[in-house]
This record gives sequence, C-alpha cells and structure tokens, in this order.
Amino acid sequence: MGDRMIYFDNAATTFPKPKEVYDAIMEAMKEYGANPGRSGHKLALKMSREIYKTRELLAQLFNVSNPMNIIFTGNCTDSLNIVIKGLLKEGDHVITTSMEHNSVLRPLHALKKKGVDVTIVQADNMGRINPEDIRRSIKDNTKLIATTHVSNLTGTILPVEEIGKIAKDNGIYYLVDAAQSAGVYDIDVEKMNIDFLAFPGHKSLLGPQGTGGLYIREGIDVEEMKQGGTGSASHLLDQPHICPDRYESGTLNGPGIVGLGAGVNYILREGIERIRKHEIKLTKHFMEEVLKIDKVKVYGPLDIAEHGPVVAINILGADSSEVSYVLDEKYNIATRPGLHCAPLAHKTIGTLEEGVVRFSFGPFNTHEEIDIAIRAIKEITLEL
Amino acid sequence: MGDRMIYFDNAATTFPKPKEVYDAIMEAMKEYGANPGRSGHKLALKMSREIYKTRELLAQLFNVSNPMNIIFTGNCTDSLNIVIKGLLKEGDHVITTSMEHNSVLRPLHALKKKGVDVTIVQADNMGRINPEDIRRSIKDNTKLIATTHVSNLTGTILPVEEIGKIAKDNGIYYLVDAAQSAGVYDIDVEKMNIDFLAFPGHKSLLGPQGTGGLYIREGIDVEEMKQGGTGSASHLLDQPHICPDRYESGTLNGPGIVGLGAGVNYILREGIERIRKHEIKLTKHFMEEVLKIDKVKVYGPLDIAEHGPVVAINILGADSSEVSYVLDEKYNIATRPGLHCAPLAHKTIGTLEEGVVRFSFGPFNTHEEIDIAIRAIKEITLEL
Repeated sequence: MGDRMIYFDNAATTFPKPKEVYDAIMEAMKEYGANPGRSGHKLALKMSREIYKTRELLAQLFNVSNPMNIIFTGNCTDSLNIVIKGLLKEGDHVITTSMEHNSVLRPLHALKKKGVDVTIVQADNMGRINPEDIRRSIKDNTKLIATTHVSNLTGTILPVEEIGKIAKDNGIYYLVDAAQSAGVYDIDVEKMNIDFLAFPGHKSLLGPQGTGGLYIREGIDVEEMKQGGTGSASHLLDQPHICPDRYESGTLNGPGIVGLGAGVNYILREGIERIRKHEIKLTKHFMEEVLKIDKVKVYGPLDIAEHGPVVAINILGADSSEVSYVLDEKYNIATRPGLHCAPLAHKTIGTLEEGVVRFSFGPFNTHEEIDIAIRAIKEITLEL
Repeated sequence: MGDRMIYFDNAATTFPKPKEVYDAIMEAMKEYGANPGRSGHKLALKMSREIYKTRELLAQLFNVSNPMNIIFTGNCTDSLNIVIKGLLKEGDHVITTSMEHNSVLRPLHALKKKGVDVTIVQADNMGRINPEDIRRSIKDNTKLIATTHVSNLTGTILPVEEIGKIAKDNGIYYLVDAAQSAGVYDIDVEKMNIDFLAFPGHKSLLGPQGTGGLYIREGIDVEEMKQGGTGSASHLLDQPHICPDRYESGTLNGPGIVGLGAGVNYILREGIERIRKHEIKLTKHFMEEVLKIDKVKVYGPLDIAEHGPVVAINILGADSSEVSYVLDEKYNIATRPGLHCAPLAHKTIGTLEEGVVRFSFGPFNTHEEIDIAIRAIKEITLEL
C-alpha cells in the first residue's frame, strides 16, 4: 500500500524510514528485547548500551556535551509539556509566538488558568517573527521564551539564534520546539543558547513513532511530570533527581530508541546538509511550479531561505479537505488538509476557516514526485 | 544472543514476543507508517483503523463496553500517573498497600507533599492484603483505592474483586495496577468494579516496549496530565474533553499499538486460561523444586493459588546480585536481582537490605528450562 503512494505528509511523520531503522528495531526486539536498566543480565545490559548509544548520537547532533542530559519521551508533546509544566509556576511570565503548535499553546493555555502570565508575540502574515517583538515583551518576571524552530503550517523558519541571544542577555530560559527542524536544520544548543530542546523521534530524525526527546541544560531544576520506577535509588519513595532517570519513569521504548539511533546515524552519515539541500531543492521546485498555477494560493514566505520543507496551499474556491481527498483518491498523493493543530498560526495567515492543504517533503521524495503533484494540482484546478 | 538465553525476566518485559507481533509491527512501519488521526489519506486512515482494532481487542479482553474509554500511553507508569495526578486534589484521601510498585508509591508520595492524605495498608509477610484492612482505612474524604493485582516482587495475588466491592459499596473509585496480571489473569472491569485499569503493553499482553494503556470508566472526570495536538477541535486552545483524545496528545506509537493488538489477538486466540495454566504449572514446578534445595529461601505465599508467575528467592549467605550474575554468566539464565522498585514490599518481606533474585515466567518458557535453572541453583548453593 505504502509503496505506490507519493507521500507528502512528512511533517506529520516521515515515511518511509531508512531500511537500517527497520532492521535495527527488529534486531533489538528479536535479539535483545529486554528491559534496559532494570536487570543486570546480558540482554538487559545490551539494551541499555544501545539506548546509551542513541543518547550519544543525539548529543553529537545537537552539540550537547553530556549525553545524560538527553531524556527520552514518547513524543515531542511529552517533551514540551515536561518543560512548560515543570518550570513555570504561578506568577511567572512566558513569551511565545502565534506560530506555535497546540503542543505549546495548549499547555500554556492550561497554565494561564493557574496564574501563569502568557504573552503571545504576533507573527506577520507570512508567519515571520521579529525578534525585537520578543525583546519588547520581556518583563521582570519573564522566566521562559518558547518558540518553534520551523512552523508546521507555513514552513517559516524562526530566528532561533537571535531569540536565543535575547534570552541569554536577559537571563531567561529558552525552549525550542524542534518538531519540524531536528534532523534537517543545524541545531547547536550552545551556539543558539537553547536551554531546552524538544524534538520528536519519528519525524526528520527518521526514528519510529513512539519516540521523542528532550535536552535539558545541566543544572536547571525542572520538576518531573510523572514519578515511578527508575531502576535507580529503588529504596526511596522520592523520585531521584539525577538526569535522565528523573524524567524517565517506567519502561522506555527500547527498540524504538534503538531505531531512532539508526535514524540519527543515517543522518550523520549522509550529512544533514545534504539531506536539507535535497529537501529544500524539492520545496523550491514545488513552490516555483505551484505558483504558476492559476487559482492556487501559497502561504508563508516565498523566499526559500526563510522556508522549511513544508508548503501550505489552497485552491481558491475549493475546500482543502476536498482537494486533499482528490489528491489521495485519484492521484495516490498523501497530503494533510484542514487545520494543523496550530490555531493562531491559521489566524495569522487567515485560514482558520478553510484550513490549508499541506505538502511536506522528506529525504526519500523525488523531483519526479513533485512534477506528478504539480500536474495533479493543475488538473484539479481545471476540474473544480 | 537472545536465542541461547533462558529468559526468566518476563515481569520486566516479556521476551520473546509471538512472531505475529514482530510481523504486525514491521507491516505497520513499512506499509502504512503514517500518522493516525492527523491526515485523511489512505495510509493515515489505515493506521487509525488498525489502532482502533487494538482498542477493541483490549476492550474485549477487559470487558470494557466502549473501546473509546481505552487510552494509549507509553507505559503502565504513564497510566498510573494520569489517574493519580488527575484525580486526587488537596484534602483527598487515598488508600494503597505496602505491595505497590514505585509507579504507584512515588506519585502518591509526591502528592502527599501537596496535601493529599495517603494511607498505606500493610500486607502480611507473604505480601497478602486483608481486604478488611482496606475497609477499616476508609474515611469520609477517601476518593481512591489503588492496589496492584499481582505483586511484582512476591507474585502474591491481591483480592481485587473483594477490594472492588468495598470500593463500590463506599462510593470510592478503584484503580488497579495490572502490570503483572493483564494478559495472564482474567480482568473484568464490570465484575471487579474497577474504575481505572492501568496496564503495560509490553509485559504479558505481549506487545512491544513503548506501549501501555489505561481504562477510565465513562463519566469520571480525570484531569489530563499533558495537553497538545489531538487532531480534534484543532481551532481551540482548550484541550478537548472527549475520550481518548483528551489523554492522547501528540503522535501515538502507531506501529507499537498495532503490535500490541497482535499480542492481544494471540492471547485471545490461544486462550488466556491456557496461557495462565502453562505459566502457573511452571511456577509450581519451580517452587516445588527450589524449596527442596538447602540454603534457598523463597518469599511470598507457598500456595500456588495465591501466586502469580513471579518467584522471589535468595540463597542464604549470598548476595542476590552475585547469584543473578552467576546465573547469567555461567548458565545463560536471565533473572533480576536486587531491589525491584517496590521498597515497601521489600520491607514487608524483610529484604530491603539484600534484595532478591526474581524469576518470572512467560508463555514461551518450558518445563525443561525450569529444570536447568533448578540444577543451576543447586550448583550455586554448593559452590558458594
């Protein structure tokens, strides 16, 4: 089924994964599928070691000096919730943007009801954030700035390095939601002054679903969201405070994390720049061609330098769900229609009512697939 | 590596899984590895449908009338935290037992500091709980009773049906931690008056790591632990309150859940009674034989009717870690030594200092493997 499909829904989850990811997961499940860090036998130790290797690979990718500061979670939403809920207390102020996903906005909205002060910096109608607007929003009690790196709706790249500098200059923590960037864009937590980096495992890092991660800068006290067995300090009823144990209660997704390691390994071997260039080339080609089609509206910045491999469009007069449905049914092209869990971003670009058709590209998409999609969109505009 | 091993660490995670579990996961990843419930294309819909099938299978197994009241989580610890944190507020009283895992005790310990009143009912030195002790602990403000079904340390089976009746008679919610029982013992949430059932996917349900679940009785308002994208009501900043969406923010572990479905399907087809009989027969044989060995101390009830497929032993005068190490290194037998994330249970049976060597059996263990282990234990007692 998946083979014949042209898959342009990589922003939701990448598909397919590199073969070595599948192989690594199967090997982990069949050969050493034990519980890491709970027992001391060979299989458990092997699983622990392999999980640690993934920590090391992620640390290498993001320039994190101590792999133990990388925490494994179930998805990026878990990671974002841990920081947002564990750091912000009543009376604290947090700055975020109108381009955020509900995984940032909804936890903040819940905290707002508990006395956390939230400022949402408005993007322009291309989804661009002016760092100066963030600087101007800082108050005495500002504890956190939380922004996405690349918008999941418009593909707009946010100026994380500038924002990180503003955060650092003002002694404020910086949380980056790398849901759409980890594995495609260079992320250096030191250079960018990122204190918390939340990332999914199953998107551009090419790991399986059921994996995510969080970097927490050493020495920052973030309360854990859950407590439980950690395999460490088992005699105590208090949750241990050592990292990553504090945040990794319960059995980890061992084989999934091993698969994530294989994905990161693939990226490091192929080169993140090469992957990015490929995806951006496809994005550029798609944007250039789709802009030539009458009745097509493209959202977000038109300059590819400001643009990740995510393109939102609409065919004027047509419902996004209908367009996406026809692309799927008639052309075997997978896209995502409607709202994209980012209500304020839709409001920002003026599509809260109609939604958009989102095309998102991955490392295994081809130039030819883009051409097929362009022809399909042309035909649809003529037929509707 | 796994092939040659005699794996007696099934209480930590079952290994191996039925072949159809591996196959289902691989098919999901390779053939329709899309994001369920986020897009509307064929691959996403296929993933959604397959995930729903797992909900249905679990509902069938636990006699849950509406599959939408089954929530998927990352592990049993997640599930327990959701209920404990989402239900109990300052001033509430909760009753639990000394046989609980840290996944129950640690969240309760954290809530205690926030003004939740916690009563821990003491088990006898076999790990047995007298339901009358629970009844006697009820206060006007008792909101929840939380107990395990089968102890992960001693294998002691707790009288969940009696406790469920006490809870119901007194209008108190009942949370069962089925970490060691789901997939081996009959669980009927109606008959047993269970309001919340927390279970791991990767233990006796034979699914992969990275899966867990929670049943919440319809109509009970449990606050969600995290907020985020749910693919539903995307225009709203408020977390939707419909089940399971409220508790399933972020991308689910699609292929993992499909694998869990294959595991449950295996259990339903083979028959849970047949699996239980097999495991209990092995347990009985192991206990009978190990009790004959000089210098071996067995913990927990000696009557197999009170005993799940988990046996804790010590060799007098030997450290549990050393015994487990020799079993692993010399005999290729995987067990778990030391403390088992259940400090009060260790205190109850008097092993908080020395720990125990835990043997836990699964559906793929054999009579012959038990005999090999018995011979190994004999040899070790003679050598030490």
